[in-house]
Amino acid sequence: MKRIVVTGASGFVGRFAVPALLQRGFEVHSIGRQAAADVGAQNHACDLFDARSVTDFLELVRPSHILHLAWFVPPGKFWSASENLDWVAASISLYRAFVSAGGRRFVGAGTCAEYDWTHEKLEEQVTPCRPSTLYGIAKNNLQQLLSAASHGDSISFAWGRVFFLYGPGEKRGRLVSDLVANLLDGKSVETTHGNQVRDFMHVADVAAAFAALCESEVEGPVNIASGSAMPLREMMMQIAELVSRTDLLKLGHRLAPPEDPRRLTASVVRLKGEVGFSPRFDLKSGIADTVNWWRQQH
Amino acid sequence: MKRIVVTGASGFVGRFAVPALLQRGFEVHSIGRQAAADVGAQNHACDLFDARSVTDFLELVRPSHILHLAWFVPPGKFWSASENLDWVAASISLYRAFVSAGGRRFVGAGTCAEYDWTHEKLEEQVTPCRPSTLYGIAKNNLQQLLSAASHGDSISFAWGRVFFLYGPGEKRGRLVSDLVANLLDGKSVETTHGNQVRDFMHVADVAAAFAALCESEVEGPVNIASGSAMPLREMMMQIAELVSRTDLLKLGHRLAPPEDPRRLTASVVRLKGEVGFSPRFDLKSGIADTVNWWRQQH
Repeated sequence: MKRIVVTGASGFVGRFAVPALLQRGFEVHSIGRQAAADVGAQNHACDLFDARSVTDFLELVRPSHILHLAWFVPPGKFWSASENLDWVAASISLYRAFVSAGGRRFVGAGTCAEYDWTHEKLEEQVTPCRPSTLYGIAKNNLQQLLSAASHGDSISFAWGRVFFLYGPGEKRGRLVSDLVANLLDGKSVETTHGNQVRDFMHVADVAAAFAALCESEVEGPVNIASGSAMPLREMMMQIAELVSRTDLLKLGHRLAPPEDPRRLTASVVRLKGEVGFSPRFDLKSGIADTVNWWRQQH
Repeated sequence: MKRIVVTGASGFVGRFAVPALLQRGFEVHSIGRQAAADVGAQNHACDLFDARSVTDFLELVRPSHILHLAWFVPPGKFWSASENLDWVAASISLYRAFVSAGGRRFVGAGTCAEYDWTHEKLEEQVTPCRPSTLYGIAKNNLQQLLSAASHGDSISFAWGRVFFLYGPGEKRGRLVSDLVANLLDGKSVETTHGNQVRDFMHVADVAAAFAALCESEVEGPVNIASGSAMPLREMMMQIAELVSRTDLLKLGHRLAPPEDPRRLTASVVRLKGEVGFSPRFDLKSGIADTVNWWRQQH
């Protein structure tokens, strides 16, 4: 029996993760402060900051798996918010309750911001972790703690390090969501030079990769990325061309922050070779899907 | 107004920390699951695993300082116990409640087990941390998290890394307590070769060093150690001589664990130079004090 509890199921990645897990034959239980209305999942109201409720809930459901996606992620705020500490504490309590309730495999969501960004190619078992933000520090410390504890607890533990993502349902205040929405509104968008190389993945593929990771037995950190990094300007140009508003895209009108790394690319050897996952969207189809979604919101 | 809350005030170090803080003019509030009866401190019953109680308590007392000594430390068990995770979570909640209640300086208790023990001289801003036990990992991760968060929260944060300690009140199951108690009982004690070099400090000095650290403005990790490391055999011989039972000390009758480091010595440049603290006991007077205490227990 594969019975999984998903936290953050109503979030950006979570909404796509639930159907991806159902498709893999998991019985899916989502939890959040309010019971969400995810199609196909059994939804439960449970506050992750109330350790006793979490314990009671997990004792009742007794999941074999957890996919822990919930975190504090308001755009612009999450990098340095003190709430990152609260989420470390809540995640530890969740892990402990899961172990007590007889859980078998815990999959958490990490971030490429755990790595030392002076390296250009980020590889799970090679690149050192040296996070420079509270968000990256919190995620990395949680990973270290749960990884160390899982050995003694005989828990199978994996940690998906999410790179850059985009897609339907993305909140405003992020690169792709703001760009698409503004261009569709006929507003000009001033950007940096756009030479920064990044790995962007469609949110449905991010979620499907997590589902594949849950079903696998792969342990430790695994990059969740497309493996196809490109300069931001290329992606932004593709978006502007698709909505026929290249005239509104003002590349190079804003200064890039001095600490902005030139290249951040992801090794996907583990995701592809060990987990056996390949993304469904390429950038072109992913952007088309995203633009379509934004058009429907207008 | 220097008003300090001490966690673990009824523990091995805590019992000596309370008078040391009182002597430095702090108004001392101790908290624990049961209200203890520390002379001179105001004692409060408050469960550190109940985040709401902790928040309510700190809002009421509104301390300027915290000395956080409480942890899961049963001899033999604490190195790999899952409870280490619970204490990370509880410590984060304590920190967050302290910040909300207007706190100014947070001092936590770390351990020399945070360092990479392939190094022989352990120095705060030089030696890399590479803990090999869940206890060391938990303490080091907590330190990293609170240190990073404290910058954004404008909290003054220090972290006393305790080395090896001994003294009155030590629980059985530790090197010095077992040795003294057994020799006084006329039982022979089989030990390893005793060539391991370690830095031992009398618990009253450890506590006094923490009190000095609380009163100072020194930030970051600070080794709490004597600076006078010596082979274990020397210390054990001194104890056996003091109780006139060298006949019962069987050095070299047990194998040392293969991973037992040969030398662990502490830099005390920060403690001595920056905090301005020097220990009151040398090994001879410290051992005499300890043996006297054990004699009174018999």
